[in-house]
This record gives sequence, structure tokens and C-alpha cells, in this order.
Amino acid sequence: MKFLIPFVGKTKESYLDAGIRDYAGRLGRFAEVDLPVLRERHGRKDADEVVKAAEAALLLEQAASAGFRVALDPGGKSSDSEELAGLLTQWERQGIGTVCFLIGGHLGLHRSVLDRAELALSLSRLTFTHEMTRLILLEQLYRACTIKAGHKYHK
Amino acid sequence: MKFLIPFVGKTKESYLDAGIRDYAGRLGRFAEVDLPVLRERHGRKDADEVVKAAEAALLLEQAASAGFRVALDPGGKSSDSEELAGLLTQWERQGIGTVCFLIGGHLGLHRSVLDRAELALSLSRLTFTHEMTRLILLEQLYRACTIKAGHKYHK
Repeated sequence: MKFLIPFVGKTKESYLDAGIRDYAGRLGRFAEVDLPVLRERHGRKDADEVVKAAEAALLLEQAASAGFRVALDPGGKSSDSEELAGLLTQWERQGIGTVCFLIGGHLGLHRSVLDRAELALSLSRLTFTHEMTRLILLEQLYRACTIKAGHKYHK
Repeated sequence: MKFLIPFVGKTKESYLDAGIRDYAGRLGRFAEVDLPVLRERHGRKDADEVVKAAEAALLLEQAASAGFRVALDPGGKSSDSEELAGLLTQWERQGIGTVCFLIGGHLGLHRSVLDRAELALSLSRLTFTHEMTRLILLEQLYRACTIKAGHKYHK
């Protein structure tokens, strides 16, 4: 299985970028990981809604080839780490080649992304920065893969 | 208000340590922050339950002087960032000087800590490493303080 996780803009916080690289590397032992960085095309003075719509178009363009789209949204379905591992197993059984996870930019996800995703998943009811969300998602995918493989990782 | 967050052992992952320092510094603009590192006293070959009980004793010793104890536990009460800001306001109104947040070591929290805490709080249904939990908690306390103060931070 391949995890496609497009980032709207680079990860600016260096320690989060280091963490993301660390977990992307670990996750790479279980699955193909693709983290393309999308260049924001909107103007600096555009209204929030315009920026979000432009980001959504970029994200959906990336996600078009994926077999399954998961939008990360605090209002989505919550899951524990074992349930996330169960989801991975389910996707694998369904023969889904690429799962695309969609994280909004600093303004959050545009409605159109939530509408087009097959699943809205919540990592927490708490609001995280989009850069923290990247790290937490990668750590959880890695954890889910270790659970699925029966490896020892961390409680 | 003062936030007392004892850590069982140092934060070994350097990027998480950098993130924790970053948010502790930012949080320091709103409140006093104390992050004592507790030296683990147990032996290397002790059973998990013995280690957890020894860590619990260290944590409860630290927490003894606090006016309120919050145990971080995936099975605890979940909250969104606004509700967490509301909790801070409530503690302040109650005249609580020090709030102590209790995070377990890599084996998790011993039952005795959950029993002695006034509140069990869940950051997520997902399981995080204890070092990630430190970073996420500090980021959320900072976020809650900015919400409370009406400052702009991050959606």
C-alpha cells in the first residue's frame, strides 16, 4: 500500500520537519510514503475563503489518482490506534493501492475536500496546527503499521 | 497560575525536546511553567508494574503541593481547545495556584495516579508516545492561553 500525503506548503518549524522525516523513514519500512509539497498559488492578500478553495483544488488534483481519500478533520470520525490499524487492513483487503490523506493549510480544509473524501477522520477533538497534524498523522500511521505487523513499538 | 508538568525521564528524541522547549517558552508569557525531570529510581530488570508504581510515587510526590491534579489518559474526559481554555478560566476563578499535569513514562500511568488526580483528561483516543504527549500538551496549553487572552494564534 502507498500513503500519499500532500502538504500545502513546506513544514516551516524545523523540529516538526525533523520529526516528520523521522516517521516518514520508519513508515517507509511498511509502505511506500509520498509527501509532495504543493506550491501555494494564491496571492498574499486573498481572502481566507479564496485561499482555502485554491488549496482544495491543489489537494484534490493530487488525490485524484488515489483509490481512497481520507480528510483529516476534528469533526470527523474518531478512532483509537487499534481501529486505525484495522482500517489499514480493511483497505488492503479491498485492494486499494494508494490512500491519500488530506490535511488543510493553516486555515483548515475547504468544504469541497470534505465532500470529496471517502472518510473524514479526526485525530483529536483538539485543534492542532497543520504542521503538528502532519507529525501526529505519520506517527499514528507508523504505530498502526506496527500493530498490524505485531511489532513492538510503544504504548 | 502555574503549570507544573513533571517528566518521568528526559525527552530523548531531540526534535521533540526542541518543540517542548519552544512551547514552554511561548507558554511562559502567560503562566509560570515548571518542567522538572524526575530521575527514575527503579532497576532495569524490574517488572512493568513495579516500574509504573515507582514512577507513580515520584509523580505523586511532585504533585503533592499542587492545588489541582490532571492525569493525562486516553480514556479520560475528551475536550476541544475552547473547552480546555474554559477549564483554565475555571481553575483561575477557583483560586487554584498550581495545576499539575501528570504524564506517564513509556509504560503509561499507574492506576494510583488516576485515582489521586482530580481530573483525567484525554488529548485523543489515539495512543501517543509519552514524549509526543509532552509536546502536544504544551502546545494545547499555549493554544488555550491564547484563546483565553483573545490573541491570534493558529486555527
